[in-house]
Amino acid sequence: MSEKKKKAVILLSGGLDSTTAAAIALDKGFGLVGLSFDYGQRNDIELVAAKKVAQSMGITEHYIVPLDFWKVFGGSSLVDKAIPVLKDRTEEEMVAKIPSTYVPGRGFIFLSIAVALAESLDIKTIITGYCGVDAAGYPDSSKSFINTFQELLSIGAVRGDRSIPWEIYTPLIKMQKSEVIQTGVSLGVDYSQTVTCYEAMERDGNVIACGRCDSCLLRKKGFEDVKISDPTLYYQVI
Amino acid sequence: MSEKKKKAVILLSGGLDSTTAAAIALDKGFGLVGLSFDYGQRNDIELVAAKKVAQSMGITEHYIVPLDFWKVFGGSSLVDKAIPVLKDRTEEEMVAKIPSTYVPGRGFIFLSIAVALAESLDIKTIITGYCGVDAAGYPDSSKSFINTFQELLSIGAVRGDRSIPWEIYTPLIKMQKSEVIQTGVSLGVDYSQTVTCYEAMERDGNVIACGRCDSCLLRKKGFEDVKISDPTLYYQVI
Repeated sequence: MSEKKKKAVILLSGGLDSTTAAAIALDKGFGLVGLSFDYGQRNDIELVAAKKVAQSMGITEHYIVPLDFWKVFGGSSLVDKAIPVLKDRTEEEMVAKIPSTYVPGRGFIFLSIAVALAESLDIKTIITGYCGVDAAGYPDSSKSFINTFQELLSIGAVRGDRSIPWEIYTPLIKMQKSEVIQTGVSLGVDYSQTVTCYEAMERDGNVIACGRCDSCLLRKKGFEDVKISDPTLYYQVI
Repeated sequence: MSEKKKKAVILLSGGLDSTTAAAIALDKGFGLVGLSFDYGQRNDIELVAAKKVAQSMGITEHYIVPLDFWKVFGGSSLVDKAIPVLKDRTEEEMVAKIPSTYVPGRGFIFLSIAVALAESLDIKTIITGYCGVDAAGYPDSSKSFINTFQELLSIGAVRGDRSIPWEIYTPLIKMQKSEVIQTGVSLGVDYSQTVTCYEAMERDGNVIACGRCDSCLLRKKGFEDVKISDPTLYYQVI
């Protein structure tokens, strides 16, 4: 009497949010197809994490798409190592200004390629781990962006059975980082597999995070808020 | 007293429409940055045309972005040679059904990469040669798609000077193919450089078109309607 699982394409970065979103989706009974991008990100070590996460969650269909053009276009510290990643910013600073790690067009492109994959596989659901708290610096992952993108899908991606509507499922969009972590822990997520840092490095088989980029700071605060120990190893420049 | 030209990123396929759009934009005084895609299209000979067009129009900044994932994702006769391109369809048939040459997500991805390039270059205008008559089979090039995409830009691509609004300029969106050709001819466009056919081949240095795919049929009819001779060479299977 097994019901056929509803399939969805999920964006997997290897970070805390997308891993939690995957755990939630699996818990809700989705069959997941993973999608990650090798786009010249300075923290491409996250792809190793994405693979580990996919494997440990039984997501056997996992596409890693190479995109070489950002290295040519530039304009972001995430793809251009000559531009520094800002450190030790306060939450006010994070909200006030688009960070140097913002990648032009990234939110547009990642979702668009998810559309291509989903439509090729006759799938109408896309899942992202976009978390509301990050949307100030990355407006292309905000709730209103997602809503408008979903409208765009109903206009522009109409091959196949039009009676099945597109859905972009964003389970974390209204959560604080602490809620994300609490939810993930309750679902048994192993956060030691995830990589959040923009400047993580690998030493002796361990991934070690800087602890000072926006991404690390938000992660650390999230774990502190819920009084759960962050399994991430951090390095200190002395 | 030279005024600084307003710069725009233009999608250049090497076909009739985008070439005409480029001519219109240059006539209006835009400074153009060309963007083309090498995405595994069976008619990749159009890229040779795109380069020729760019060169002859003085568009010296021309990016050709390789995208390899469609060959993996499949689902379109344009990227999978095992799926046949339909021939000799009537205009009613073209309007009634999404063609096999539809490429999942393509309209989303091309515009999104244009956003990435534009934002990297501090440009706020994107130009496409999308032509209303093609939108039935390619809803991701329709007027309402463009309008909603523009809304998405105002939400998600907000780095830089927010007082300058994004614009997607689509000079051909309300034109019939015949009007496109008439406009182009009046601006001195050399249509012999353009390639429209999905199954064009090169022989003895000439590009020869099939004359029977949707794209050829619309082009031929456009030239017939305005009683201008189409400089394209066509082949006939006998």
